[in-house]
Amino acid sequence: MTSAVPEPEGTRPPAPLRRRPGGRTARIRTQVLDAVLAELGERGYDGLTMEAVAARAGVHRATVYRRWGDVGGLLADVLDAAGDDAWQPPDTGSLQGDLAALNHEIQDALTAQPPIVAALIAASFRSEKADHAQRRLWEDRYARCEIIVGRAVRRGELPPHTDARRLLIAATAPLYHQLVLLRTPPDPDLPDQAARTAALAASAGAFAQPTPVGDT
Amino acid sequence: MTSAVPEPEGTRPPAPLRRRPGGRTARIRTQVLDAVLAELGERGYDGLTMEAVAARAGVHRATVYRRWGDVGGLLADVLDAAGDDAWQPPDTGSLQGDLAALNHEIQDALTAQPPIVAALIAASFRSEKADHAQRRLWEDRYARCEIIVGRAVRRGELPPHTDARRLLIAATAPLYHQLVLLRTPPDPDLPDQAARTAALAASAGAFAQPTPVGDT
Repeated sequence: MTSAVPEPEGTRPPAPLRRRPGGRTARIRTQVLDAVLAELGERGYDGLTMEAVAARAGVHRATVYRRWGDVGGLLADVLDAAGDDAWQPPDTGSLQGDLAALNHEIQDALTAQPPIVAALIAASFRSEKADHAQRRLWEDRYARCEIIVGRAVRRGELPPHTDARRLLIAATAPLYHQLVLLRTPPDPDLPDQAARTAALAASAGAFAQPTPVGDT
Repeated sequence: MTSAVPEPEGTRPPAPLRRRPGGRTARIRTQVLDAVLAELGERGYDGLTMEAVAARAGVHRATVYRRWGDVGGLLADVLDAAGDDAWQPPDTGSLQGDLAALNHEIQDALTAQPPIVAALIAASFRSEKADHAQRRLWEDRYARCEIIVGRAVRRGELPPHTDARRLLIAATAPLYHQLVLLRTPPDPDLPDQAARTAALAASAGAFAQPTPVGDT
């Protein structure tokens, strides 16, 4: 859900068949974004500089400035790259199981060391570019998660007109609230409990939407 | 819940009977903290300086440095002062009503103009002192809100061993998640819907704790 590190795509055609994906440009991007993640993990936002990123990536400073502009541009590209993956939400066979597995992924990401995901969220309060990119990433992740609700509807676990987004927010918000805002120590029971709470409420019709007129 | 502006206490003894509450010192604190709120509302964290606060408060710069140290110290004192009030959670006669009224207070605070509460939360990602003070304030507010759950238990709306804190987090987290992290536009229905979701889950036993051994 909050994966910050781009993962390789699983379905690429063999190298000779595919177009060169940018060649040197793509290689530089990978080096620079890896350096941003490493610097962010070691020093946090306050220690992140264009110079340190360029030096660690082994790329000319002028190239980094020209292509990314400033630290906010670097962070935004890290976040955009994180969304450019093949991540799919867990598929465990039940609504509560899917939500619990999702919440465990979120808790793991938010408590990982070095705290890359937490640092990116914190950076979104400092940089407008990072803010927009973080919101794009969350929007993308929540959109991908809607399939969890679709499957539960098809299994008959939920009424057909269930507001998927609201259900997903209810299930995941306690994790973010405790770990990002209240900054309480991670509670190992919370992922399962928040999932159970949302699933119970959903079964009781908490996220049911009125049937659209003309829908049968 | 998130009131950032200290309110006068309602139950002070008449002036001649009470000790002087600091006199000039208390007056300077009020002037300085008011200036912090005004500067924060106008300029945000990035524009907040000791100099601007001292000038706006009409207080010597040296006094502000000596007493508050730095911008983090000023923000921490604003947050501590915000917690030093007589705020009590809403008492509407039902669990869902109390949670909905609480959520409306939170949504109003998080969307107020100037965005003081939002700026203080953002500042807690920048300053360790503000971070600690923000956490103290939240802890205090959630502790005060536990009476909502106690009243619901006494009314027979909830099982006796209900985890009050977890219920309160579940009810309020969607507001913070949407407005502070996802930064979606305020949804006028969300306060009521999040309250209803938490109340439904609570009635279904989602926050029931095992009965302690020996408890009757």
